[in-house]
Amino acid sequence: MARETRAGEKRVALVPELVTKLTGLGYQVAVEPGAGLPALISDEEYAAAGAVLDARAFGDADAVVSVQPLAIDRIRGLRPGAATISFLPTAEEREVVAALRYAGVTSFAMELVPRISRAQPMDALTSQALVSGYRGVVVAAEMLPRFFPLTMTAAGTVPPAQVVVLGAGVAGLQAIATARRLGAVVQAYDVRAASAEEIRSLGAEAIDLGLEPLEGASGYARVMTEDRAALQMQRLAPYVAAADALITTAAVPGRPAPLLVSRAMVEQMRPGSVVVDLAAESGGNVAGVVAGEVVRIGSAQVWGGADVPSQMPGPASRLYAQNIVSLVTLMTADGAFAPDFGDEIVAGCCVTHGGAIRAQ
Amino acid sequence: MARETRAGEKRVALVPELVTKLTGLGYQVAVEPGAGLPALISDEEYAAAGAVLDARAFGDADAVVSVQPLAIDRIRGLRPGAATISFLPTAEEREVVAALRYAGVTSFAMELVPRISRAQPMDALTSQALVSGYRGVVVAAEMLPRFFPLTMTAAGTVPPAQVVVLGAGVAGLQAIATARRLGAVVQAYDVRAASAEEIRSLGAEAIDLGLEPLEGASGYARVMTEDRAALQMQRLAPYVAAADALITTAAVPGRPAPLLVSRAMVEQMRPGSVVVDLAAESGGNVAGVVAGEVVRIGSAQVWGGADVPSQMPGPASRLYAQNIVSLVTLMTADGAFAPDFGDEIVAGCCVTHGGAIRAQ
Repeated sequence: MARETRAGEKRVALVPELVTKLTGLGYQVAVEPGAGLPALISDEEYAAAGAVLDARAFGDADAVVSVQPLAIDRIRGLRPGAATISFLPTAEEREVVAALRYAGVTSFAMELVPRISRAQPMDALTSQALVSGYRGVVVAAEMLPRFFPLTMTAAGTVPPAQVVVLGAGVAGLQAIATARRLGAVVQAYDVRAASAEEIRSLGAEAIDLGLEPLEGASGYARVMTEDRAALQMQRLAPYVAAADALITTAAVPGRPAPLLVSRAMVEQMRPGSVVVDLAAESGGNVAGVVAGEVVRIGSAQVWGGADVPSQMPGPASRLYAQNIVSLVTLMTADGAFAPDFGDEIVAGCCVTHGGAIRAQ
Repeated sequence: MARETRAGEKRVALVPELVTKLTGLGYQVAVEPGAGLPALISDEEYAAAGAVLDARAFGDADAVVSVQPLAIDRIRGLRPGAATISFLPTAEEREVVAALRYAGVTSFAMELVPRISRAQPMDALTSQALVSGYRGVVVAAEMLPRFFPLTMTAAGTVPPAQVVVLGAGVAGLQAIATARRLGAVVQAYDVRAASAEEIRSLGAEAIDLGLEPLEGASGYARVMTEDRAALQMQRLAPYVAAADALITTAAVPGRPAPLLVSRAMVEQMRPGSVVVDLAAESGGNVAGVVAGEVVRIGSAQVWGGADVPSQMPGPASRLYAQNIVSLVTLMTADGAFAPDFGDEIVAGCCVTHGGAIRAQ
């Protein structure tokens, strides 16, 4: 397991409780000293779980696991034929992909794991979106100067907060579930037809804008026309204006996030309102959002998410590590790392192999 | 309604939706311009509800309501025979009490409203403790780098957070209820015998330290011996050490908060743990806490509450205003402000009247 080197990354690719899963498969597990610290995991915990703490193991490893892609100077330290497994957004990381290819490394991108049911335990986009969705609501609850739940007292009743969630993928559904848990009244919108039922199953109201649903590949929404986008904004405006907290989650990996909410829409919100944009890093669903900052638009505080799963490194790492271990297990034969490129999952997520680029 | 002048106070004593309750009783309601702004309420909202926005009304008022005691220079601007209703901790505010007496003002302290069932709608300590208890959990959830609820995914299960709540008065019970809502496993402790059942009724475990219960007056805990306190700490230590989040709420108005948790106990907590001390302003339940700051003790982040209800000025003001209106209603006869000192509640909460001090 490699130490993470990118700023803001506090997750790690392996947690102590899963080390034995790998040793049980026949692997020796080496962890770079201090690698767990950003996720609050000590070297001693890894050692107690059976891992070797060894800075030099990196260059000898058959497979190196990490959250973020390895830095280019580190890729040069891998032996030819070694494998890396990490997030690896190929469109944005062309230099890294080139370095991996040049070094003769076999690399796998967690984003490219096919969305088929057999691959669900390896689906790191889903596991990390779950963390983001929860985190978004906790942040909104902390920022909102009022109660989420209906509160009854001898001195009267305080009505519950109104929460609007845009985008009902994994992060959105988790946000809905968490806001409902906390007692808020939740309305949610997604362009996909199947979403309305999922939204309702969590006790939220599915916003119906009277627009045709849009269904894309792999369960993600597809890009819409400008006319449709304008009409959608216009019809969403009253819901946004009435919300105490707006949480936007519409992001598609490797593409800019769709702009769902204009500045004017946020300006209609009441004093004290809160906007949490979980898609801020890919451009944002809300006009004017800044990733990693809280900006004021009209009377609302607008929180732009940056490295959101890293804000809960413990559970995010644990879920990611489970994804990694599931994928490594699939790639193991007779106690050795031996990815079978005839397997749809292995082939689907392979970026470089044998000096060639397999996925762009 | 007076503008609040103390630093950190964002609550107000009256909200627009309750103005009509007072006008319905026959009162003219005047609000100092801009008074609602810290609670995000505009002058226009008060005006729309039937209040007069008038800075000069202060000197002519029969009764002035506020959250914090009036500043001494403002008390001098009241007419003799006028009344004030606010929080007024007499032991700490001797100069204010002296000024009220000297000015011939009749003053009522919300803290002194007797804890009898008829007075429940006027019980501002309770309504504000409710806000603090909710807020404490939301802060803890935001600071804790892990999920509160048990989280099940295709990549495995993340266990729920362990929350320990010390003190199960109004704030503590609200904290327990909110942490349970969010899915945490909650354990709670209070020295009073009746608490165990209340704790269990909210789905939490009542910690049994094998110590005699302590019951004080008015439903508050009473001071304990040093031996008992030491034994209690010793037996609480393993619960604190195992907690992801510790929330302490043991405060008695007008007295220093009891020290329940030593530095050594916090140092036993795991990396990433969070402590929220709602009693920080009265000295704290946790050794080393600083009101209004987050300090690090061992591996834990320790949040000291300061002006906690003011962090949610909307609902805190609404509940407080309801308390105020209920008390004013009790003090109204034939459309005029005419407190009946034969009434147990009126007599109980009166601090100064006719140039004399009634309560210390």
